[in-house]
Amino acid sequence: MSPQGGRGAWRPPTPGSDPERRLEELGLVLPEARRPVGSYLPAVTEGSLVFVAGQAAYADGRWVTGILGLDMTVDEGREAARLAGLNVLAALKAHLGSLDRVRRVVKVLGMVHASQDFVQHPAVIDGFSDLMVDVFGERGRHARSAVGMSSLPFGAAVEVEAIVAI
Amino acid sequence: MSPQGGRGAWRPPTPGSDPERRLEELGLVLPEARRPVGSYLPAVTEGSLVFVAGQAAYADGRWVTGILGLDMTVDEGREAARLAGLNVLAALKAHLGSLDRVRRVVKVLGMVHASQDFVQHPAVIDGFSDLMVDVFGERGRHARSAVGMSSLPFGAAVEVEAIVAI
Amino acid sequence: MSPQGGRGAWRPPTPGSDPERRLEELGLVLPEARRPVGSYLPAVTEGSLVFVAGQAAYADGRWVTGILGLDMTVDEGREAARLAGLNVLAALKAHLGSLDRVRRVVKVLGMVHASQDFVQHPAVIDGFSDLMVDVFGERGRHARSAVGMSSLPFGAAVEVEAIVAI
Repeated sequence: MSPQGGRGAWRPPTPGSDPERRLEELGLVLPEARRPVGSYLPAVTEGSLVFVAGQAAYADGRWVTGILGLDMTVDEGREAARLAGLNVLAALKAHLGSLDRVRRVVKVLGMVHASQDFVQHPAVIDGFSDLMVDVFGERGRHARSAVGMSSLPFGAAVEVEAIVAI
Repeated sequence: MSPQGGRGAWRPPTPGSDPERRLEELGLVLPEARRPVGSYLPAVTEGSLVFVAGQAAYADGRWVTGILGLDMTVDEGREAARLAGLNVLAALKAHLGSLDRVRRVVKVLGMVHASQDFVQHPAVIDGFSDLMVDVFGERGRHARSAVGMSSLPFGAAVEVEAIVAI
Repeated sequence: MSPQGGRGAWRPPTPGSDPERRLEELGLVLPEARRPVGSYLPAVTEGSLVFVAGQAAYADGRWVTGILGLDMTVDEGREAARLAGLNVLAALKAHLGSLDRVRRVVKVLGMVHASQDFVQHPAVIDGFSDLMVDVFGERGRHARSAVGMSSLPFGAAVEVEAIVAI
């Protein structure tokens, strides 16, 4: 009711409370949302949950391919996971209209194309998870598994699927 | 309000709006729902979501086995994925009483027993996804990941788990 | 209203209706909840669902490592899955305050570090699933997939992620 603290009062921006603006501050430009290669949808909303289809890393017109533990370093894998994250954001934005509708990131399955003796899946998938925190702030933190796959579509090095709440 | 367009007016059937009848039209006979091999349930409902346990391809009294990229063609894999889909439908029908209770297919994890250099997981899992659209129409479309596993129970070539909404 | 059958009447305890006491009866001591190794959270609640991050087997100060089908027996794998289950329970207790808040276990993804020809994933993951039934009774039964991964973080033999309802 008082002038201070009313609806119009200025408040400092909460980091991550405005992901669309945060993308700009970070200088990030989302890629075009990729059309599914197959008989499925990029995202489905059911109740307050949005299930985002698995997204691989794609950059400069081609898939980022490789096998962790064999022909790709952890740093390269982490960058692939970050690129997969940009594709998840692009899919979400195309599905929701704006990333500002995302209330929080809930659960992530981070899949790494990895050799039998690879052990650093968490460091790779941090490339994805750190991007979510950069863009959404604390609301970007999520439960997660980061695991090794025998192979992924198109030879992709990383694929990530996510559940977010709106 | 007018006679035409009122509640009683004839409308052409929406494809997929009646999955039980659609199964008949397609000439599909569901297999018997398989009992879990292990300490778990074939499906669990929580709220409006039904979580269906992973189903492998089973036909003619045995598991459909093989490794994509090694000893099985993509067409054979696609057929295995379709058979896994029939088992998912059988599990859903046994759990819900009727497939007509399915409001939509939400999310699918399509797991392919695949070699390290296999790249066509989406084409394989389309065998599952196309069946869902055949049976449920547009409500059968779902978010999905299609990925490669080092191995699957019983040497199965394909295993699929699904979340549907009721 | 009558003395018998009223709110205060004695009823025999339902197995699993009191998981905290059940843990004591079983002589189980939960390990300390492990801090995530990476940019993620051990568990996230959204609505009535709790998504628990993947938990590997950890005992005596080290990860339980190995590859099923190569250098580890099914019995050793089953014990690793049980240990992963204790870590899931520890994560849930740390997140919820008490396991008594768990209404039921809903869905489990049991991931086994396995060779290309391993086939007994269900027998391994039963080590996890049986523990859930021991602790929560019938409410511990869940839908599940049990599958083979090319590798897991830290060389772990088993990793399990779970969705529970509160």
